[in-house]
Amino acid sequence: MPSYQAPLRDMRFVMDEMFDYPSHYAALPCGDEASPDVVNAILEEGARFARDVLLPLNQSGDEEGCLLEGGEVKAPQGFKEAYQQYVEGGWPSLAADPEQGGQGLPPSLAMMLSEMICATNLAWGMYPGLSHGAADALRHHGTDEQKETYLTKLVEGVWTGTMCLTEPHCGTDLGLIKTRAVPNESGAYAITGTKIFISAGDHNLAENIVHLVLAKLPGAPEGSKGISLFVVPKFMPDAQGNPGDRNGVSCGSLEHKMGIHGNATCVMNFDGAMGYLVGAPNKGLACMFTMMNAARLGVGIQGLGLIEASFQNSLSYARDRLQMRALSGAQAPEKVADPIIVHPDVRRMLLTQKAFAEGGRMLVLYTAQMLDIVEHGKPGEEKERAETLLGLLTPIVKAFLTEVGFECTNEGVQIFGGHGFIKEWGMEQLVRDARITRLYEGTTGIQALDLLGRKVLMSQGESLKVFTKEIHKFCKTESDNPALKEFVEPLAKLNAEWGELTMGVGMKAMQDREEVGAASVDYLMYSGYVTLAYLFARAAKQSLVELEGDDKAFYAAKLNTARFYYQRLLPRTKAHAQMIQAGAGSLMAMSSEDFGLGFEI
Amino acid sequence: MPSYQAPLRDMRFVMDEMFDYPSHYAALPCGDEASPDVVNAILEEGARFARDVLLPLNQSGDEEGCLLEGGEVKAPQGFKEAYQQYVEGGWPSLAADPEQGGQGLPPSLAMMLSEMICATNLAWGMYPGLSHGAADALRHHGTDEQKETYLTKLVEGVWTGTMCLTEPHCGTDLGLIKTRAVPNESGAYAITGTKIFISAGDHNLAENIVHLVLAKLPGAPEGSKGISLFVVPKFMPDAQGNPGDRNGVSCGSLEHKMGIHGNATCVMNFDGAMGYLVGAPNKGLACMFTMMNAARLGVGIQGLGLIEASFQNSLSYARDRLQMRALSGAQAPEKVADPIIVHPDVRRMLLTQKAFAEGGRMLVLYTAQMLDIVEHGKPGEEKERAETLLGLLTPIVKAFLTEVGFECTNEGVQIFGGHGFIKEWGMEQLVRDARITRLYEGTTGIQALDLLGRKVLMSQGESLKVFTKEIHKFCKTESDNPALKEFVEPLAKLNAEWGELTMGVGMKAMQDREEVGAASVDYLMYSGYVTLAYLFARAAKQSLVELEGDDKAFYAAKLNTARFYYQRLLPRTKAHAQMIQAGAGSLMAMSSEDFGLGFEI
Repeated sequence: MPSYQAPLRDMRFVMDEMFDYPSHYAALPCGDEASPDVVNAILEEGARFARDVLLPLNQSGDEEGCLLEGGEVKAPQGFKEAYQQYVEGGWPSLAADPEQGGQGLPPSLAMMLSEMICATNLAWGMYPGLSHGAADALRHHGTDEQKETYLTKLVEGVWTGTMCLTEPHCGTDLGLIKTRAVPNESGAYAITGTKIFISAGDHNLAENIVHLVLAKLPGAPEGSKGISLFVVPKFMPDAQGNPGDRNGVSCGSLEHKMGIHGNATCVMNFDGAMGYLVGAPNKGLACMFTMMNAARLGVGIQGLGLIEASFQNSLSYARDRLQMRALSGAQAPEKVADPIIVHPDVRRMLLTQKAFAEGGRMLVLYTAQMLDIVEHGKPGEEKERAETLLGLLTPIVKAFLTEVGFECTNEGVQIFGGHGFIKEWGMEQLVRDARITRLYEGTTGIQALDLLGRKVLMSQGESLKVFTKEIHKFCKTESDNPALKEFVEPLAKLNAEWGELTMGVGMKAMQDREEVGAASVDYLMYSGYVTLAYLFARAAKQSLVELEGDDKAFYAAKLNTARFYYQRLLPRTKAHAQMIQAGAGSLMAMSSEDFGLGFEI
Repeated sequence: MPSYQAPLRDMRFVMDEMFDYPSHYAALPCGDEASPDVVNAILEEGARFARDVLLPLNQSGDEEGCLLEGGEVKAPQGFKEAYQQYVEGGWPSLAADPEQGGQGLPPSLAMMLSEMICATNLAWGMYPGLSHGAADALRHHGTDEQKETYLTKLVEGVWTGTMCLTEPHCGTDLGLIKTRAVPNESGAYAITGTKIFISAGDHNLAENIVHLVLAKLPGAPEGSKGISLFVVPKFMPDAQGNPGDRNGVSCGSLEHKMGIHGNATCVMNFDGAMGYLVGAPNKGLACMFTMMNAARLGVGIQGLGLIEASFQNSLSYARDRLQMRALSGAQAPEKVADPIIVHPDVRRMLLTQKAFAEGGRMLVLYTAQMLDIVEHGKPGEEKERAETLLGLLTPIVKAFLTEVGFECTNEGVQIFGGHGFIKEWGMEQLVRDARITRLYEGTTGIQALDLLGRKVLMSQGESLKVFTKEIHKFCKTESDNPALKEFVEPLAKLNAEWGELTMGVGMKAMQDREEVGAASVDYLMYSGYVTLAYLFARAAKQSLVELEGDDKAFYAAKLNTARFYYQRLLPRTKAHAQMIQAGAGSLMAMSSEDFGLGFEI
């Protein structure tokens, strides 16, 4: 069975040493609660919960899957009990508003817990995970009554939430939804329609489920301007706020899917279900984005967690498995063969995992500080800046970390060789689970359009400049630090190139909008690599300072990981840069028919 | 359910128009049989068999899997009947030696059939597929009696073969095997040991199974110099050569694995099983490589088949699925949304699949000509050259096509969005099936060491020069063809760089052998991209000639695919080149302990 230890040492490095989280927390209104002691205690307790409660259920949950029986969904054995422990431990309310019964800790802290949960049991983690988006939507757009009725229960964790967006004929293009909401005399709405791919749509973990549902009002405008958001409980709350009568919503079937078997992916049928409008009529898309942005960061963290899980088990296998001698001669002559970690190509794969885990963690914790400020900071310049950076980095967190997450879980399989393909070892499950992260809450292609089209070009490049200026400043400050030259020099060049590439696409896009789509995914990946390069340069700077201290080995390893990243991963930007510049020509030249001429006769 | 049409038009383009297979076949001793009419008839009949018989069993086979009951393995429903049709159709003997009852056609033809089989039902294809390696080993190293007893049955297809190499503690490092062969008085051997990961190790498709087993003789030298090869039948042939008494070999259990569920991956227990030495004592490794080389080409073709399968279904979905409007305005204003094939990023993914399918087919058919000459050609300079090129290209075919095969099947899932993750559509099965191809018959890392270490550097670069000279000649000949400039200019540069990179690694390797392993996988991928660039340049040349002819659209699409390949895939060489040059430093600097310092406290 796979093992897992939360990377607490590395988390502390990033939080305390790189980004000075103690001061960051102290400056937040909620900072008193987030003292270093409390933070450490929470991380350590979370680490135990993930390792001791969630990890043992990961393989069994995958094997067993979910069951739809008599209209009710059962999660795999043990999932319910684990969820009870989770609720009893107060975990759901960690970063929630004290007004709704939350503990009011900064969201960044919940994100590090989320990494641990995703690393040990992604399918389980999605039951509480989906509640965050639902809660965010209610918190920002719900009435006081809705908050009292639903949000407090979500915060407590006794109820869970869903996001019901997708329908059979539309996923990305939500303007096409057919689900209808018909007002009745009480001011409520009768919701009718079919939603698919609803994660945690039904299950036996919580006593009630709060569905956040996109639907169309009678006579609503066409397309995405005619979407409204509704809250639809599985059981109607009674006068005491407890689950009462069953509402007209039920799970029609469970999807059979590649991975995350332990999570119920439901077809949800709404058959005149009672629902209540959240936010203004026809303004559902904005509410939806509130849910979506939280969910997107969450999916990026799923990528990060899976990388760490795959890395730890790959490392352990690479130390144990004896196979061949090192090319330069036996390293463990007392054994029948050398452990495969002696082989440079195995090390290349391990270091790829390690670099993306540590780089991904820096990216998440950098972004998390922005989220903390957006959520808790005082209005002003700093908050505006944080909003801009959060908007810019969210699609990168989501898409870049899931793309490299899929790569890294596959490196895990590769390090295990043929054994990686066998279920027993647990490495192939990580690949199957990781596969969905590139798809849901907006595919990589959609994130890329969000980044390049919506965030960068629509702001005339201003949002990007907020970030590239920060990088430029760092490079300038460190320009005469010879020990950092190997990082700062290429970083400065890439940072400049990032701006030039953006300008280039922007110019072309003025002639032809298709140029945005043609460049978008390569642009997103390029942006991800440069962002991590900046963060690794900062990590290297910090490590150089500590290199003569007590924990020398840790900092030397960090420095080497940064070096590996620059030498063996960052060169991928060269390919992406050229592909960004290649333009739309070869993509758009062929007609739809011409694609099939090799086999359609 | 996924659909499939064999890409006959594209096969004919590559065979007839690019590589002049008619003349190539005519020049082979077996060429009379391989007339254009016969070749076409075989490809068309094979296309029907794959589409009508194999494809309908692919999803059901995945769902059902194999069953071990009462010591006997049952393949999924329908597999046995399909295999009977395959044998009755004479397919197994197509390219086999007439002396053993084969039809004596060139192996290249069987390889195109193999593409169709792998595209429609990889798990099924591995039952007959493994027989090829076993047959090759017996043909090259077996006694006349062994050939008569076993080879004729394998050729006919009434028996199937296996390759029993891997043991629980060793896969790559076969010198560590523990299976023992003890001679008895009759000149036979008693084989005892456990083999794992034995594809088609037991099943109900054929009346007997011929295991080719690596084992150690008493007192054999340590390591790979002490390995011998044995033939071990499941049922001992009786006096008439029919299956008689059960031998002491049986399936102990079936592996539960990520994909290829329809193929029985067996733990095989040899318990004093009767076996016969194949080839000389302690020379089993050479025999093993005979099997392995055939199998490696076969696995590369699996990659190719899966790309084509994923491409065809992705294309069909991209034409049907309506979602969003084109960024430049509605393309299908009469519909609720545009088909997603209008979006440049969807086209990028489709063209990636198309380019690797067509490029992979060129690579396989180029290599197949070398194999034809090696197998059937007269001794002499041409044959020596073919042997060199076959040796050089085999690891590229195997590893490059399976790496990009995994990428392309994943693009298929991505094009389907969330639906790609759902089993029903069949796209995620292609990913799971493709995953094993990067692992078995030598992982990508092993292929890369074979290419760079064994084939290129051990020949002082001479084997590579045979190929780069051919490319150089092509570039020189076409250097004043302005229509080809966009291909020939970058190709000539890459071809020169390939030599320089090789020299660079070679020089470093003289100081430190680890430099070979550090560069190997990037070197292999680089080599694959340049090889396809050469082949696409030739395809472009041919297409330009035909561009004004009757089938203009086909050639225009081919030219555009070549252009896409050069503009949007070939830039990856830039990254690989830089990573090859980065050297072993950052890979080897850390101790095994230091890898875990972020989480091990």
